[in-house]
Amino acid sequence: MPHPTTATPSAGGIDLAAELALRELIALLPEGAVLVGSAALADYSHDDAEWAPFVPPLAVVLATSTDDVAATVRFAGANGLAVVARGAGTGLSGGANSVADCIVVSLERMDRVLEIDVGERLAVAQAGVINNALRIAVAEQGLWYPPDPASYAISTIGGNAATNAGGICCVKYGVTRDYILGLTVVLADGQTVRLGRRTAKGVTGYDLTALMIGSEGTLGIITEVTVKLLPLAGREERAIVGYFPSLTAAGDAVAGVASAGIVPSALELIDRMCLRAVEDWQGFGLPSDVDTLLMAKVDEPGSTGLALAERIAEIFALAGGVHVELATEQDEVDRLFLARRLAYPALERLGPVLTEDVCVPRGRVPEMLGRIQATAERHDVVIANIAHAGDGNLHPLIIAPVGDEAAKARAKEAFDEIVADCLALGGTVTGEHGVGLLKLPGAAQELEPRVLAMHRAIKDALDPAGLLNPGKAFPDQRARTGSGASDARTRGEA
Amino acid sequence: MPHPTTATPSAGGIDLAAELALRELIALLPEGAVLVGSAALADYSHDDAEWAPFVPPLAVVLATSTDDVAATVRFAGANGLAVVARGAGTGLSGGANSVADCIVVSLERMDRVLEIDVGERLAVAQAGVINNALRIAVAEQGLWYPPDPASYAISTIGGNAATNAGGICCVKYGVTRDYILGLTVVLADGQTVRLGRRTAKGVTGYDLTALMIGSEGTLGIITEVTVKLLPLAGREERAIVGYFPSLTAAGDAVAGVASAGIVPSALELIDRMCLRAVEDWQGFGLPSDVDTLLMAKVDEPGSTGLALAERIAEIFALAGGVHVELATEQDEVDRLFLARRLAYPALERLGPVLTEDVCVPRGRVPEMLGRIQATAERHDVVIANIAHAGDGNLHPLIIAPVGDEAAKARAKEAFDEIVADCLALGGTVTGEHGVGLLKLPGAAQELEPRVLAMHRAIKDALDPAGLLNPGKAFPDQRARTGSGASDARTRGEA
Repeated sequence: MPHPTTATPSAGGIDLAAELALRELIALLPEGAVLVGSAALADYSHDDAEWAPFVPPLAVVLATSTDDVAATVRFAGANGLAVVARGAGTGLSGGANSVADCIVVSLERMDRVLEIDVGERLAVAQAGVINNALRIAVAEQGLWYPPDPASYAISTIGGNAATNAGGICCVKYGVTRDYILGLTVVLADGQTVRLGRRTAKGVTGYDLTALMIGSEGTLGIITEVTVKLLPLAGREERAIVGYFPSLTAAGDAVAGVASAGIVPSALELIDRMCLRAVEDWQGFGLPSDVDTLLMAKVDEPGSTGLALAERIAEIFALAGGVHVELATEQDEVDRLFLARRLAYPALERLGPVLTEDVCVPRGRVPEMLGRIQATAERHDVVIANIAHAGDGNLHPLIIAPVGDEAAKARAKEAFDEIVADCLALGGTVTGEHGVGLLKLPGAAQELEPRVLAMHRAIKDALDPAGLLNPGKAFPDQRARTGSGASDARTRGEA
Repeated sequence: MPHPTTATPSAGGIDLAAELALRELIALLPEGAVLVGSAALADYSHDDAEWAPFVPPLAVVLATSTDDVAATVRFAGANGLAVVARGAGTGLSGGANSVADCIVVSLERMDRVLEIDVGERLAVAQAGVINNALRIAVAEQGLWYPPDPASYAISTIGGNAATNAGGICCVKYGVTRDYILGLTVVLADGQTVRLGRRTAKGVTGYDLTALMIGSEGTLGIITEVTVKLLPLAGREERAIVGYFPSLTAAGDAVAGVASAGIVPSALELIDRMCLRAVEDWQGFGLPSDVDTLLMAKVDEPGSTGLALAERIAEIFALAGGVHVELATEQDEVDRLFLARRLAYPALERLGPVLTEDVCVPRGRVPEMLGRIQATAERHDVVIANIAHAGDGNLHPLIIAPVGDEAAKARAKEAFDEIVADCLALGGTVTGEHGVGLLKLPGAAQELEPRVLAMHRAIKDALDPAGLLNPGKAFPDQRARTGSGASDARTRGEA
């Protein structure tokens, strides 16, 4: 791991030169934009992946404009500092964790929806707009922004773009990348560019928009996004839930839906451990004689949707599902999906959660779930599972009781074993959360050396000094590590 | 323009060193893989954009494997030659046009569908598989590959990926990029990499798959593609056609469909000039008292689809549409769309067609069509229009009679004016055909200097010697030009 974990703010340790430099930064930016207090530095030192290493930043910039971001990047470049961009800090891989000698640029104050064009079905938003705020704003105009990461109520559209966030409906509607038409990006040299377009189609030059999406702020800092929207009308949600006696039976149901040629708008799996945690917490009266819950949605309107929902209910029953329910009223649909929304917070009550994000071919879901169970037993750790089953994207949640360091060490071993198993089954180590820091070893296994070399070449081409979020997104041995300057930085300054 | 147009094969002019080198290439590859005869060199010297410059290649390699492509690239690198990859040569921008001192690698013999995985809804195909052959192969397994460029019966899936081809159904279903999960690519150093994944989702590392798609063989040569498929079942096509008294009335109908929140699976426009050409050729008995034809499709099943089709028919009538017809039988749907399919060949009968591919925000379609009409009048050229109206992607077809050099010069002026107008309306110079050679000046206007510099940096990072399809895809003044070596090449050899 490139950065030693520490919770001790280093602000007190800044030398005089650094302090003078920070004064210069403060002068460059609007009043109140720069935070240097130790509490603030601690607050902005990591995202939601507490297991990943971090060191507090030298300063936090609360940017209110693209120009603020550009000025900060230029300042950092001139002073040999790194820049870590941050949305709402809801990432789960450490992608926004602060690194040595860095300034964190928070985009949370850039929270304006700049434009909604109903005729063109697009919106332009600043990076700090919360996903759900965008969703609500466009819904008022009869439009729909599909990507719905579980964090949609708290994560930013810029962070969604920087990590290429997935979500529940992406089994049918695709991921963030599929909805981004264009970006405003601050590059490593502090220049601002507009990438992409506002038209429905366009192939002029390389797809630099797609290159930026999912690059976790290592190639540029996204400050505005132009998103494609769908009409809100014409969809009618129906939910189908069923409880299964085993993971295998639930896996059969998932395969049955696929082979029936049905593409549901959600197909989520929750295992016994999650169900029990939700039940213990909220006491819904969920059935206690069952193992695994599958929840599907379809959104075709009218009789078409009803027929699909009934067909899914049949497939669930055929695969051994019991208590199969079909909901056609939106309230009831939302109620049935509540257990899914509560699973993560219910588990977090049991201790720090190390979140996996492996994605396997959907036919391998049952086998992967079986391997995860075996891993949990072998390493004596608690692992609960929620899964975007229709995508093959699993979130084994490894839980270690607070303060139990031995359990924490076993959890990390389990984490690595799950990564290895997913690769053995033809999967990918991260389906939607991003590499950040947590998946660097996994990415090193997944990406062949020549492909890693392509990453390095592109990083060098666009950020020769290694300024932007160094050491994230792909394993780069040359990135600055710990508190010292790396080769990359030295080269950049030469 | 970087390359002088010539139709004279240069094979006779190869010097002894080059001839000896070619013997070495012949020895490296399977028997019959290398063509050096002047007729073959002429055959492979350009794609379907006869207006773009080209010089015949030194040799043509008919690759039968990724290894053949890799061996050719390594040979070219060692001998200071360029490599131009080519699918079926159906491109319309000169992207596959042969350049000075190059070897053309044709992928047409790599025509095997390697795998269809029904459960995972994916297929793996060699680059030379014809789009329609893939379509038929997966349909036999109940699956559907949506991207449908007009050339689907003759263009290759590798060429579709290299240009990020669009098509008629992409107004609803997206373009080629949206269906490519992974690629096998031969890089400029002759190494072969696999990019992307086989899972439904995945965000490990940079999206190099998306970077390769649409890069027109300038960053690597795509030899295999892994595509995502949809279920074939569940769609029922219905067509709605209407004739309009003016382009403006048709434009109103397009806007009406959008503002009704309907996303049709096709929305095509054909103007009077095209209608007349089709009618003169085939004599369908199309109405003669009309100006513009709009053809829409919806594919929702059952009563939902019927209601949408009826709603579109209403919108057409409200906007002034006459002879509005609604077809629900597939035969009738195909018959109604036949005029669309015949438009291009009908116009080619009138003389060489210079095909535009501008894309504007869909609300600007009527204004853009008006400007095109004015351009035609101002420059005294014949311009017919077919358009993916629902996407704002227009194909003004500029026709100059054979042998009329003055008309050809006027056609080029009109071409440039249309590009400028599309940019003035917030559009992009190429919606789906690619930059190739024809749109280099347009791309230079559309892409800001810093974005062009990003292109150069990435090209240099992945192809430092400027070996792969030099001078295409983006304006790069350093690419080798004419018959001499460029800076890029010199640097690469240094």
